[in-house]
Amino acid sequence: MKYYSYEHFAKDTNSLIKQVKDYNPHAIVAIARGGLTLAHAMAEGLKIRNVQTLRTELYDEQDKRSCITLEGTCEFDNVKRVLVVDDIADSGETLDAVMQSLACGNSEIEFKSATLFYKKTSVYEPHFWINEANDWIEFFWEKDFKS
Amino acid sequence: MKYYSYEHFAKDTNSLIKQVKDYNPHAIVAIARGGLTLAHAMAEGLKIRNVQTLRTELYDEQDKRSCITLEGTCEFDNVKRVLVVDDIADSGETLDAVMQSLACGNSEIEFKSATLFYKKTSVYEPHFWINEANDWIEFFWEKDFKS
Repeated sequence: MKYYSYEHFAKDTNSLIKQVKDYNPHAIVAIARGGLTLAHAMAEGLKIRNVQTLRTELYDEQDKRSCITLEGTCEFDNVKRVLVVDDIADSGETLDAVMQSLACGNSEIEFKSATLFYKKTSVYEPHFWINEANDWIEFFWEKDFKS
Repeated sequence: MKYYSYEHFAKDTNSLIKQVKDYNPHAIVAIARGGLTLAHAMAEGLKIRNVQTLRTELYDEQDKRSCITLEGTCEFDNVKRVLVVDDIADSGETLDAVMQSLACGNSEIEFKSATLFYKKTSVYEPHFWINEANDWIEFFWEKDFKS
């Protein structure tokens, strides 16, 4: 278990912003909850006002494989390039499902993805990523806030 | 101009989580961009998975008063109590417009609002807030990320 601090996040996010800059996206889709803080920081750094969210629910149905359902609706008026943001591509199933779902029905829009962490065993590799994930990561937003 | 650091944010957000806890919301609506990081932290602290976003566009039309337009759609299936989250109630016009818009057509759902800062001259006072805003605040998410 490795604690991922705000200081580390700020440094990595600025590197990710530099990577993404030439892609010049018009909108950001944050995958909730994990991608929310990163999406906010990247939107500020890239001066993108159009930030939307999708969230995923993982259902473990009896006698069936676990199944990812996407919740939420995005609207892409006057948008040609979209950046999809999440904290980590771990199994990669969430990002894979989100990217396929967004591409479907939006053939005139280009979608690329960005994460802070990427695990080599992920079924999906983001277009932009910073760190290879080896340990289990405890993000500051998971650790620093308690009710 | 006062820099609002992550450390200050973490302390305030934990206080805000304590204030909100008894309200026991089922979903969070983040006002983008300002409310995104706060919504993420509160959702983790309150163990709420259902996080959605609305964004506002402020149009200054010639010979007309400036006009706030809400963008985005929220879905409240099986939700009775919603927390609307933004960084600051400054003029209060954004939050006022969002709360009115959400209430309209969702009469069976209760909506309350939470911010880190509240300015006494705001036309709208959030149900939950932490600091009175006197200076212009430079939030860490506005300052720490550059392209």
